[in-house]
Amino acid sequence: MKKLIWPGSTQLAPVSAVLVGCGRADTYNLITVAWAGTICSKPPMLSISIRPERYSYQLILESGEFTVNLPTVEQIRVTDYCGVVSGRDQDKFKATNLTPLPGSQVEAPLVAECPLGLECKVTQTLELGSHTLFIAEIVAVQVSEKFVNAEGRLELEKAQLTAYVHGHYHALGEAIGHFGYSVRKKPGNIVRK
Amino acid sequence: MKKLIWPGSTQLAPVSAVLVGCGRADTYNLITVAWAGTICSKPPMLSISIRPERYSYQLILESGEFTVNLPTVEQIRVTDYCGVVSGRDQDKFKATNLTPLPGSQVEAPLVAECPLGLECKVTQTLELGSHTLFIAEIVAVQVSEKFVNAEGRLELEKAQLTAYVHGHYHALGEAIGHFGYSVRKKPGNIVRK
Repeated sequence: MKKLIWPGSTQLAPVSAVLVGCGRADTYNLITVAWAGTICSKPPMLSISIRPERYSYQLILESGEFTVNLPTVEQIRVTDYCGVVSGRDQDKFKATNLTPLPGSQVEAPLVAECPLGLECKVTQTLELGSHTLFIAEIVAVQVSEKFVNAEGRLELEKAQLTAYVHGHYHALGEAIGHFGYSVRKKPGNIVRK
Repeated sequence: MKKLIWPGSTQLAPVSAVLVGCGRADTYNLITVAWAGTICSKPPMLSISIRPERYSYQLILESGEFTVNLPTVEQIRVTDYCGVVSGRDQDKFKATNLTPLPGSQVEAPLVAECPLGLECKVTQTLELGSHTLFIAEIVAVQVSEKFVNAEGRLELEKAQLTAYVHGHYHALGEAIGHFGYSVRKKPGNIVRK
């Protein structure tokens, strides 16, 4: 377990690389964001961080709205693409053949192909350095009906979500436990798996 | 692609469930946090969100320091345990048999068994509702030497990191692409995989 000590860097992993929808009907855009996270349960809130020089930055600043769409293995190539090219140069919905879907509470577009889309309204922005943090409330969620079972439960495990680790996209592997499982069966008998 | 519209909720996934180290030598504690994310590249920054009623909340508030340790498949049972029990009731390092490691820049402990530990100093706190957001700079990183190759590159793909999806811990699956791969080979030929 010998350690090397390195300077601070952005090594948290895995994270989600998500498709962020922004703009209004005539300015719809997509940007891929890996600096995203849930930050509060009640109210439900998340944050995304974007560099001010990105085209989407101004769109989100002006509208105060965006959507967060979770890509599956099937969408990872276009997710990468939306993180590399700029909406200044092309219509990314057209280039990727993704389908914009109207929000129910926001004007920003969702991505129809993604199993889960979160509609967000910005409550605060913080300039941190290279990136500005957009703090937002999640005001609605759109779920693909095909992943909701007869009891109304979201079966996201069927959607083949992806994770991002230091520049590499990964499929999700097998489930190895669930919240609270360590104390459910043999309390006191805590061992490393 | 028919959608159901639900109220806003914390559906971003996957996220990391990380072991957060806090306190000082005589008050070392661990808490598992899923509401964590990278928020800035320069300076390197991340955030974690914690409920004020948690024991670790006060420790972090007082010291202004914490560490973020990435658990592997091997550590996921104790990671779950550290999210379920309280440091008010027991010494979690002892209960889990995890080894506290001194920080190089912070007094908060790292977890020796985790392949990667990030030393963090709080720069700002925001009370959001159920959770308080701790915004922090990553001042140093400790890496297990066995995951660093002869060229000095971190081979994190060998460390079996884990992801957290709506209450379930997952192993990471296969790599399916890397940043920029969508435009490297056949520019203009963007298709869904």
